[in-house]
Amino acid sequence: MSIADISQALAAREFSVRELVDKSLDKIEASKRLNCFISVLADRARIEAAAADERIARGERRGPLDGIPIAVKDNIDVAGVPATAGMAVRRMRIPNEDAFCVKRLRTAGAIVLGKASMHEAALGATNDNPYFGRCFNPHGTNRTPGGSSGGSAAAVGAGLVHGALGTDTMGSIRIPASYCGVVGLKPTYGLVSTRGVCYVSWRLDHVGPIAGSVADARILLDAIAGYDLHCPESRVPAPKGEKALRLGVLKSYEKTDVAPCVRAAFDRALASFRGLGYAIAEVDIDDYDPGHARRCGLLMVEADAALVHQKDLAERPHLFSKQTREMLDFGSNAPALKLARAERLVGLAAAAAQRLLEGLDAIVSPTTPQTAFGFGEATPDSQGDFTALANFGGFPAISVPMGDDVDGMPIGLQLMGSAWSDARLLEIAHEFETAATKK
Amino acid sequence: MSIADISQALAAREFSVRELVDKSLDKIEASKRLNCFISVLADRARIEAAAADERIARGERRGPLDGIPIAVKDNIDVAGVPATAGMAVRRMRIPNEDAFCVKRLRTAGAIVLGKASMHEAALGATNDNPYFGRCFNPHGTNRTPGGSSGGSAAAVGAGLVHGALGTDTMGSIRIPASYCGVVGLKPTYGLVSTRGVCYVSWRLDHVGPIAGSVADARILLDAIAGYDLHCPESRVPAPKGEKALRLGVLKSYEKTDVAPCVRAAFDRALASFRGLGYAIAEVDIDDYDPGHARRCGLLMVEADAALVHQKDLAERPHLFSKQTREMLDFGSNAPALKLARAERLVGLAAAAAQRLLEGLDAIVSPTTPQTAFGFGEATPDSQGDFTALANFGGFPAISVPMGDDVDGMPIGLQLMGSAWSDARLLEIAHEFETAATKK
Repeated sequence: MSIADISQALAAREFSVRELVDKSLDKIEASKRLNCFISVLADRARIEAAAADERIARGERRGPLDGIPIAVKDNIDVAGVPATAGMAVRRMRIPNEDAFCVKRLRTAGAIVLGKASMHEAALGATNDNPYFGRCFNPHGTNRTPGGSSGGSAAAVGAGLVHGALGTDTMGSIRIPASYCGVVGLKPTYGLVSTRGVCYVSWRLDHVGPIAGSVADARILLDAIAGYDLHCPESRVPAPKGEKALRLGVLKSYEKTDVAPCVRAAFDRALASFRGLGYAIAEVDIDDYDPGHARRCGLLMVEADAALVHQKDLAERPHLFSKQTREMLDFGSNAPALKLARAERLVGLAAAAAQRLLEGLDAIVSPTTPQTAFGFGEATPDSQGDFTALANFGGFPAISVPMGDDVDGMPIGLQLMGSAWSDARLLEIAHEFETAATKK
Repeated sequence: MSIADISQALAAREFSVRELVDKSLDKIEASKRLNCFISVLADRARIEAAAADERIARGERRGPLDGIPIAVKDNIDVAGVPATAGMAVRRMRIPNEDAFCVKRLRTAGAIVLGKASMHEAALGATNDNPYFGRCFNPHGTNRTPGGSSGGSAAAVGAGLVHGALGTDTMGSIRIPASYCGVVGLKPTYGLVSTRGVCYVSWRLDHVGPIAGSVADARILLDAIAGYDLHCPESRVPAPKGEKALRLGVLKSYEKTDVAPCVRAAFDRALASFRGLGYAIAEVDIDDYDPGHARRCGLLMVEADAALVHQKDLAERPHLFSKQTREMLDFGSNAPALKLARAERLVGLAAAAAQRLLEGLDAIVSPTTPQTAFGFGEATPDSQGDFTALANFGGFPAISVPMGDDVDGMPIGLQLMGSAWSDARLLEIAHEFETAATKK
C-alpha cells in the first residue's frame, strides 16, 4: 500500500493511526532477526498515534504523512533518544532537539517509530556493525542490506515502516536502496538541511528519503526539503530545468566491472526508456576513472570525519573499531597535498558532469555494479563507483528497482540530474517505475 | 583621462592609437625605476596600434577598449611571451595561446603593452621579487605597491597604462589597488575565466581589473566577463540582487588593528554613504576572527600551490626562493586534518557572510588596515584580513580610493557584495567615487 493510499484510508477512518502503528510495531517485533533498529520508540509512537487519530477525527489532518510510521537513521537526531551514528562512543549521546529534517517530518504529522541501524560512523557500506550487530537484507539469508543507511533500507524493504530517512555521502542511501529493492533519493546538495546530523563530510553529506515507491519518496522529500537559516549547508533552490527527453550513459563508467545480470537489467531499462520516448546519448568525462575518484572522495570523507570525531578518538580510542580507527587515522595524517589533489580531481569531475547534465534530463547507470553480497564475502571495492559522482557535484540522484538477479536479489537503476532538478528526476523515475510495473 | 574619454577622442581622430601607444611606451621607459613590467611588448603593440588605427579609419571601431593600452599580470598567459608568474623556474615558459580573459581583451580591441611584475608565485603581497626585483609604489619613495598584483596597480597608478588585469586569491588585486590609489575589482567567483592563469588556488583565485576609476573598471570587466566552457571554475551568472540602500559594517573586523588615519578615512566614507541615502547597519559573524581565518585561507593556498608547482619544486628546488619553498613545503606536509579544519572554518564563514549579504547591498570596510609600508619594514600580517572573506565566498569586492595619509599614501575603501551582484557593486562604488571627487 502506498503512503497516499494509507493516508486516504486514514482520512476515511477505514483504520486508525493507532492500528497502523501497532501493526508496524508487531512487524518490527516479528522481524527482530533482521536487526533493522538500534532504538524502537514504541510507547512514544503509540501516544503520537493517539494524537494523530484525534486530529483526524477533528478534521485537522495535516496531509499525506499524517500518522505514517517512519524510521530515522541513527546518525540523525531525534530528541530524547540516543543518536549513536552506529558508534560505541556515542551510545549515551541523547540530543535534546530534533534534527531540522525530523522537525519537518513531525510538522507533517509523521510518526518516528525507531532509529535505524547503520554502518559504524557511516564509514562503510556493509552494515556489519561491531557494536550493534549485523543488519540483514530482507531479500536473502545472510546478505548485506548495503549501507551505510542499511537499517533504513532494510526496514522499508521488509515493510516494517512506510518510509525512512537516510544519509548519503558517496552512495549511502542509494546503495542500500538498490540492494533492498526499494527507492532511495539523494537530493540536491543544500535542499534538505543536514543540521542535527552527525556529519561524515559536510562537503559530501546529504539527507534523503528511502521509500517503497517513487511517489512515496516524493511525499517524504516534500516534507523534509526547505531552507534552514541555521544550517551552513542549506541552499535556496534555483529554478528547475526543462524537459529534454534525453538521457546520458556515461562512458567513463565502463571502467568499472559490472555483473552480467546487472548489465542485462540495465540494457532492459534503457530499452524501456526508449519506449517512453527518451533518446539515449553516450557521454563522457575525459580522464574520469570512477575507482580513482572514489578513492579521492574517500580521503575527503576520512579527513572530514577525523575532524568530526577528533576529540572522541583522542580520549576514547578503544571505543572505535580497528577499521574505523584506521580510516580516521589515515584521514588525520595524510599530507595536505594529497587532500588538495583529491579535492581538485573531485571538483573537476563535478564541473565536467555539470556541463554534461546541462543538455540532459539525467545520466543513467546501474546504482551498484553488483547485487547484495553475503556477509563473510569480500566487500566489492566498486560499490560506490556509480554513486559518488552525485555527491561530488551535489547533484540529485535516485535509485529505483529494475529487476532481480537469479537469487531474487534486487537490482537498482540510478538516475542523476543537474542541481535543483529533483522534481524532474522524480518524474522520470516515476515514469520508469510505472512502465516497469506494467510489464 | 578616462577610457571612455580616450576612446571618444580616438573615434574622433583627435589622436591616433599609435600616438597613444607611443606615449605609454615613452612613459614606461621614463618610469623604469618603478620596475612595473617583466616584459614590455613594444614592437607588437605598435603593430597592433596600426591595425587599430586602420579599423577606426574604416569605421570598424570595436568599442570603448579598441586601441587602449593595457597591462597583464605575468601569471596570465599572453601567447608568445614568457608567463613567469614571477618565478625563476618559469622564465622560459612561453605559452602558445592567450588566456581566455586576454582573448576577450583582444576581441574588444585592447592592446597588451606588457606583462606586469608580481610577487613570486603570487604567494605574498610585497612585490619584493628576488628574481625580477622590487616594484615600487608611484606614490612614495621606496614603498611597496602591495601585491601580488603590484606591477599592475603601480603601472595604472603611475599612468603608464589605462588599465590592467590582476589576480586575487586573498586580496591580491585589492591590496595593491588600495596602496597605489587606484580601483581594483575582484569579481564574483566564476564570472571571469581563470583558464590560462598559473593558479595559486583554484578555489580562491579570481581574475579582475585594476583601473583609474570605477567606470574604467566596469569597461574592463564587461570585456573579460563571460562563460568559458573549458574552464572548470567558470560559472553562469545568476540574476543580480535588488537595491537595498543598506550597507553593513562587520563587527568581526574590529579584532584587527587599524591605523588611525585609515579609521578616520573610513568614518568619513561612512558619513559620505549616509549622505548618499544609505543606512549603515552593524552586522556580525559569530566567532569570525579575521586573523585566524586568514591563516586558514593561507593553508589552503599553500596546499593548492604545492600541487600546482609540485613537479618544478621536486626537480628544481634551487629556482625557488627560500620563503616560497618554505610555504610550499608547509602546504605539502601539513596533516590533512588541519587542511580539512581550515576548509571547514572558511566554508562556515562564507556561508555566514552570504546570509548577511542577503539583506545588504554590500559590506564596507577599509581595504587594508594600513597604507603602503616601506621596503625593509616588517610586512604587517594583517594586510589581507579584510580582503580574504570575499575570496572565501567567491563574492565580488572592489577597492576604491578614499583619501591619503599624511605622507600622501593612498587609503582604500572596500565594498563586498553577494555573489553575482557585481554590477550593483560597481554602481555603489561609482556613487561613492563621484561624491568623493566633488568634495
